[in-house]
Amino acid sequence: MTTPTARLRGVLSPVLTPFDANLAPSALGLTRHCRALLEQGAGLAVFGTNSEANSLSLAEKRSLLDALFEAGIDPARMMPGTGACALPDAIELTRHAVRGGCAGVLVLPPFYYKGVSDEGLYRAYSKLIEGVGDSRLRLYFYHIPQVSGVPISLGLIERMLKAYPEQVAGVKDSSGDWDNTAAMIREFSPSGFDVFPGSEVFLLRGLRAGAVGCITATANVNAAEIVRVYRQWQTGEADALQARIDRIRAIFQSLPMISAMKSALAWKSGDANWNVVRPPLVELSAEQAAVLHAKLDEADFTIPDARSVAYSA
Amino acid sequence: MTTPTARLRGVLSPVLTPFDANLAPSALGLTRHCRALLEQGAGLAVFGTNSEANSLSLAEKRSLLDALFEAGIDPARMMPGTGACALPDAIELTRHAVRGGCAGVLVLPPFYYKGVSDEGLYRAYSKLIEGVGDSRLRLYFYHIPQVSGVPISLGLIERMLKAYPEQVAGVKDSSGDWDNTAAMIREFSPSGFDVFPGSEVFLLRGLRAGAVGCITATANVNAAEIVRVYRQWQTGEADALQARIDRIRAIFQSLPMISAMKSALAWKSGDANWNVVRPPLVELSAEQAAVLHAKLDEADFTIPDARSVAYSA
Repeated sequence: MTTPTARLRGVLSPVLTPFDANLAPSALGLTRHCRALLEQGAGLAVFGTNSEANSLSLAEKRSLLDALFEAGIDPARMMPGTGACALPDAIELTRHAVRGGCAGVLVLPPFYYKGVSDEGLYRAYSKLIEGVGDSRLRLYFYHIPQVSGVPISLGLIERMLKAYPEQVAGVKDSSGDWDNTAAMIREFSPSGFDVFPGSEVFLLRGLRAGAVGCITATANVNAAEIVRVYRQWQTGEADALQARIDRIRAIFQSLPMISAMKSALAWKSGDANWNVVRPPLVELSAEQAAVLHAKLDEADFTIPDARSVAYSA
Repeated sequence: MTTPTARLRGVLSPVLTPFDANLAPSALGLTRHCRALLEQGAGLAVFGTNSEANSLSLAEKRSLLDALFEAGIDPARMMPGTGACALPDAIELTRHAVRGGCAGVLVLPPFYYKGVSDEGLYRAYSKLIEGVGDSRLRLYFYHIPQVSGVPISLGLIERMLKAYPEQVAGVKDSSGDWDNTAAMIREFSPSGFDVFPGSEVFLLRGLRAGAVGCITATANVNAAEIVRVYRQWQTGEADALQARIDRIRAIFQSLPMISAMKSALAWKSGDANWNVVRPPLVELSAEQAAVLHAKLDEADFTIPDARSVAYSA
């Protein structure tokens, strides 16, 4: 047993998953992209919504995680998504991540049934923690009700924090509802519970209120600038830097975001396979891509060292 | 290669999955319950919503399916649910079911992402059919938007039927929206597309409009009476029989249905383990169970040969 690693802080990216033309995930591409993100100062929330994680099988996720470990990607900077509808799946992937030394795991509630009770969700998370049975586990709730259909309530967090004060580490709040994010910070951060807004549009506001960073899709394509806001948030430049990242965010958000980010990576890296998404997602049309690229050019958008994330032969 | 079995017709039950006290599924209990349902004339839609199928791992589902095959449960009467968020999972379980001789498979769309396009769903179902690559596959769409969050549109069915006229066999419409069920019957049953309403409340109405039966939760506890409506729908007794099954349905529907049906099976079989559900579901409270049992007694509710479905030592 190693001691738990330090708590994750700052900007994390739900890392896009690269596929080949046959829809198989590319471990090489994922490793390269993770390395590029780390170099820009971002942490790695692999297997998030933007990673198409629920479009991957458990075996594929285990295998990708192993590839990252073997490539020397630092698990102390990793918060993989390990939630699943089926408890045995969530236990298996969470255990694998914790044993590999990941600093935390980001855990969706079981998301098939809707309108489930907090008692049912409490049992789901409790059985997960007990099933993993590892004191190094640091669990972050994943609150994204507009996708999962299953919200994480303040009452659930309160109860879980009381029952598992060591394991329950924080939340990613992707609701887009600032009042909810502020309530989570106010209620639970005094107990050592770390709140990450799920978008950089709340980064500066969040840091000023007591958030510890953000976990945001757009870090896949704009990590350096978002990290700069995190590092300089107490300086006089913070508001101007925030305005700049908001502008880039808005461009990506005007299109289906996962496909738009992949399109930008394909364009800048020169590797067309970055465009590939698994069904039920669909890549951008040529027209959408042209509009996106024109808007990004107009905003002087660049990805540092973009060629390094090409992965196709 | 065997030839495809005859099309499924009549009343199918999304078979409840029995667990032991440690939340492990009981293959013995499932086999006994399947046998009892077959004896009452119902078909077996194992791994449906009411089976807590998405709370089971892929390995658990494969293993349960194998146990049913080995126990001699007739696959010609089976339509297992094989849809999944991840395409490799859907392909693996569908292939396993088809190779085992199952007459059909009931396939949820990938249900994590919401607001996905029909193009994306078309690709998901196409890749599934092509990935399975078996001419015996008979695919039934599973339309349950209030749970999955991902509707199956008439346009999607039309496109899939044109592309895969042999494989696309029908739909379970659990929307509860009769107008939608009627539209599916009207538009597609002339092409040999079989529509099953997802509740017995639409059984008689459905049969009169051209549906081929129903796939309904309550068949777990009331199969014989629901099958009687199917068998006698053209007789003068049909409306009275339909009124009787509607009454029982309403009692179960007044509580969380999966837990209520399990409570009734626990009560009538004498095996308390039937009460067990996996998180995020929660079993009925003692108060809820008492109310349920009183209402069922008042309605002269029985389960034929209920003791045969006990499975605990």
